[in-house]
Amino acid sequence: MPEVLVGEYLFLRLKELGIHTVFGVPGDFELALLDLIEPLGLKWVGAPNELVGAYAADGYARVNGMGALVTTFGPGELSALCGIGGAYCESVPILHIVGYPTVPAQKSGKILHHTLGDGKFDHYQRISSELSCATAVLDDPTTAPAEIDRVLTAMIYNSKPGYIGISEDIAYAKVSAEYLNTKIPRTLNPSAPDSEAATVTKIVSTLESAKAPVLIVDGGAARSDWGRHTDALIQALKIPFLTTGLGKGIADETSPYYHGVYGGEGSYPRDVINTVEQQADCILWLGNCPSDFNTGIFTEHLNHCTIIDLQRFSVKIGETKYDGRINHIIPLLTLIFTDTHPPLAQLPISPFRQILPIALPESNKIEQDWLWSRLSSYLHPGDLVITETGTAQVGINSTRFPSGCHGWTQSVYGSIGYAAGASAGAAIAAKESGTYQRLVLITGEGSLQLTIQAFSMLNQGYGITPVVFVLNNSGYTIERYFCGWTAKYNDIPMWDYTALFKALTTGTTKGFKVRTAGELDGLLDEKEFNEAEYPQCVEMMMDRFDAPAAMKRTFEVKKAREAAQAAVGEE
Amino acid sequence: MPEVLVGEYLFLRLKELGIHTVFGVPGDFELALLDLIEPLGLKWVGAPNELVGAYAADGYARVNGMGALVTTFGPGELSALCGIGGAYCESVPILHIVGYPTVPAQKSGKILHHTLGDGKFDHYQRISSELSCATAVLDDPTTAPAEIDRVLTAMIYNSKPGYIGISEDIAYAKVSAEYLNTKIPRTLNPSAPDSEAATVTKIVSTLESAKAPVLIVDGGAARSDWGRHTDALIQALKIPFLTTGLGKGIADETSPYYHGVYGGEGSYPRDVINTVEQQADCILWLGNCPSDFNTGIFTEHLNHCTIIDLQRFSVKIGETKYDGRINHIIPLLTLIFTDTHPPLAQLPISPFRQILPIALPESNKIEQDWLWSRLSSYLHPGDLVITETGTAQVGINSTRFPSGCHGWTQSVYGSIGYAAGASAGAAIAAKESGTYQRLVLITGEGSLQLTIQAFSMLNQGYGITPVVFVLNNSGYTIERYFCGWTAKYNDIPMWDYTALFKALTTGTTKGFKVRTAGELDGLLDEKEFNEAEYPQCVEMMMDRFDAPAAMKRTFEVKKAREAAQAAVGEE
Repeated sequence: MPEVLVGEYLFLRLKELGIHTVFGVPGDFELALLDLIEPLGLKWVGAPNELVGAYAADGYARVNGMGALVTTFGPGELSALCGIGGAYCESVPILHIVGYPTVPAQKSGKILHHTLGDGKFDHYQRISSELSCATAVLDDPTTAPAEIDRVLTAMIYNSKPGYIGISEDIAYAKVSAEYLNTKIPRTLNPSAPDSEAATVTKIVSTLESAKAPVLIVDGGAARSDWGRHTDALIQALKIPFLTTGLGKGIADETSPYYHGVYGGEGSYPRDVINTVEQQADCILWLGNCPSDFNTGIFTEHLNHCTIIDLQRFSVKIGETKYDGRINHIIPLLTLIFTDTHPPLAQLPISPFRQILPIALPESNKIEQDWLWSRLSSYLHPGDLVITETGTAQVGINSTRFPSGCHGWTQSVYGSIGYAAGASAGAAIAAKESGTYQRLVLITGEGSLQLTIQAFSMLNQGYGITPVVFVLNNSGYTIERYFCGWTAKYNDIPMWDYTALFKALTTGTTKGFKVRTAGELDGLLDEKEFNEAEYPQCVEMMMDRFDAPAAMKRTFEVKKAREAAQAAVGEE
Repeated sequence: MPEVLVGEYLFLRLKELGIHTVFGVPGDFELALLDLIEPLGLKWVGAPNELVGAYAADGYARVNGMGALVTTFGPGELSALCGIGGAYCESVPILHIVGYPTVPAQKSGKILHHTLGDGKFDHYQRISSELSCATAVLDDPTTAPAEIDRVLTAMIYNSKPGYIGISEDIAYAKVSAEYLNTKIPRTLNPSAPDSEAATVTKIVSTLESAKAPVLIVDGGAARSDWGRHTDALIQALKIPFLTTGLGKGIADETSPYYHGVYGGEGSYPRDVINTVEQQADCILWLGNCPSDFNTGIFTEHLNHCTIIDLQRFSVKIGETKYDGRINHIIPLLTLIFTDTHPPLAQLPISPFRQILPIALPESNKIEQDWLWSRLSSYLHPGDLVITETGTAQVGINSTRFPSGCHGWTQSVYGSIGYAAGASAGAAIAAKESGTYQRLVLITGEGSLQLTIQAFSMLNQGYGITPVVFVLNNSGYTIERYFCGWTAKYNDIPMWDYTALFKALTTGTTKGFKVRTAGELDGLLDEKEFNEAEYPQCVEMMMDRFDAPAAMKRTFEVKKAREAAQAAVGEE
């Protein structure tokens, strides 16, 4: 009977599932395990810290389908949790592998480093169980393959993080290799064929009976599982479509059917509010995720139309739930509407218009609204664009992506610092699959305070040539809109970002500090800048109170609503 | 009836307890709460990220007695957890205040940012309950004062972290100020006087009947609560004393009674093993903490003497437990042995000798053993010396601290990256109490990968003028001793540390990159370097396989033990 080590079994399963790179930070409880990675043909990418590593694994998983992270028991795994929480929230499947003390060491009752000093070894698993769909700490080689398979299967089924604790002694114990002959399903299986067909029929008839159906490409329901089917559906349906902030970067925005980004008062351009809330009588909504940041802080008004809501495990039409799963339903609908199906009724097409000023601002400052429309002509087809939470997350909605340009922003979880780490992982995954062309990271100097060391992954010779745009607006601008307009706590110490970009690598990089719109405009047109084959960082000095128009409007409405509520409260 | 806001109540309690600085990172769920801090006369210190903030709060608490950290719900609090776990492990009382969504927002069922998207708001509290002695999420102003007091009382009693979740609406609700008239006990209360007296009598008679008693100053049992009583006890007892790695930095090492650092094969100088394991027949052990890193990886042999083990909640003599608490017992013992008590029997005094070469190494490389003895004459009286986990944590045991020089290393939890953040908090606390003279941070370039942004707190104009020594030995040297001597995962990307030190501030700093022992030796003697009133960073290029002699020996013994165990296993 052929045998493998438990640690090999684990990594062979990852390889089988298409995870070719493992991110992490070494720690003594996991070092022997790490020795098994590269001989199996997988790649190890060390991260500067666990939080950045977790973000990188998230970025990798969004591009690749799933990802993996190795940390050490205690300090290592705890430091990764914010990244794991974000992956849970936004349905990104990451396997978090944690190097545990050996089983005899755990049983010895002695105080080991990285423990809480109380002789208990189950605290951290309980902690991670709050942020994972399944956890296992392997303590017996005979059950280890089944436990590994259980966690991986749950991770894929739910599209959520899983957790496996593994010690050196277990990792080096031998088990039968025959378990590997049974493959783990790599995607969510369909519902029962009959009920799925009935659901599709119901969706089709609902769309056919609508006078003005529109499609909204949102980002919930584990978008990386269904996003790739979207452009084909749009081409088949031939009806106007919008994205949300969370869904932006999935679909081709050069399509004549593209209208803009819908999100209540956060919409762009503003007339899409009318399209969605007044004109449409039926919305086919892919992965609806009505979170605060995805709905202009709950400023949507959608009472007057039928919503067909496709989710990971069900479909809802109006108030009725049906069996069916988004990643199977989308291709089925595409098939039906392709070619022979009579065209659906539709609103007059009014394709996306870039309404903001393209001309340089009179102030010659790098004004937010100008910046975002200017970036539309800067981006290249095939760019991977990762945008950070904050003003950038709102602003990017007014940038039109060229064809084949993809990306996202973590707008439900909204953890600042995420984008820098995630973009490194995303680019590594794109490199691996041969789709990489260029990485564009758009972040703020406030967010970089948290994960500045991520620059080191971007600059480290994985063949990534990122262009990093740093919005330096002297503090946490989006926080100022919430509270503390001039409060000290919203200020941050001034760092030298281009110097940091350079100091965090030994390779060639180039940094630019631009203070005016004119300077930036010129730089974005420069041939050398556009064709550079080394990492570049552009620090843009911006006004600390400026924000995209849609963000200003959203906060005005939010404040008016709160004032009205307070007035009612005082009556 | 005078009223205060619940948020004010919380901060007034902190002030009452002597917490004058609150560390944290702003987030929209907590901003309104932060508005209350400075009007009450407390100071807000923003950290670049939550992990660094938690480490800073830990450092502040170790110097000040207790500390506080504010983070935001979800991403913010999760990112701090490794710091909170370390504080739990090493008995450092920190209040972790978390800004929650409002109670109506929680009840709305809507998807809020920073949540897991599942409409549940109790995940994070359950997570923190694993790392805290008490938690509360305030949801009703009427019970809020009692809940705040409950958590603070538990935090002080146990000397462990506490957790309070507070939303804006609760923070701004009014409550009676009269609760504040009842003060919270600031220290652990004594046991019943009779039983404590009986315990002291038993300790005294045990010491009196010993022929060769020694004292070991360890670092367990919440050292910041009892450490300040130690020098007086040493002077009263007049018997040889040693520290452990964890207890180093508490007691005056210029005392004639100081013998060195005991920790099995990790001892320094090596003859203290004989003193403790062969010559001593009784050990008065302050805060014994037999963790792996504190015992030369369990290479101590202590079967032949009576141990009087003083802990936070009890005393153990031999195998018998007695009532009594270390922070009350030490002053009582001091009182008894001062002046009139007949002297205890004692070993011939053989005061601490610096045995390692003070002369420049022949190689002129910055060799580990040379470095640590060289630092003995560099340090100034009154220095605050914080040392990072890794080779530095072992090496510092062979540096003799001048009088009034204090410090510590986080050797039980052993979370790399800790020292940089903790040193900032420690220095701020020392500044506040008027004891600050100079901060010396000794860290490794591997550890700085995790928390490089902590430099920004050191350089930010809090009046701290640190000298930061960076041991650049091309990767994780201590990990190499565990596993993977030349493995890629133990390498790290090369950064420019002196450039980073400069780029993370706008103020004056100075950086030195030294490659030889001669250069370093000269620098350490320079008047300008010693008297600088600006932050300085010294990057020292060292051999990646070099380690302090005590560490090499410890790992040799560990490997021999494992080989012997494996041989037994194979028989």
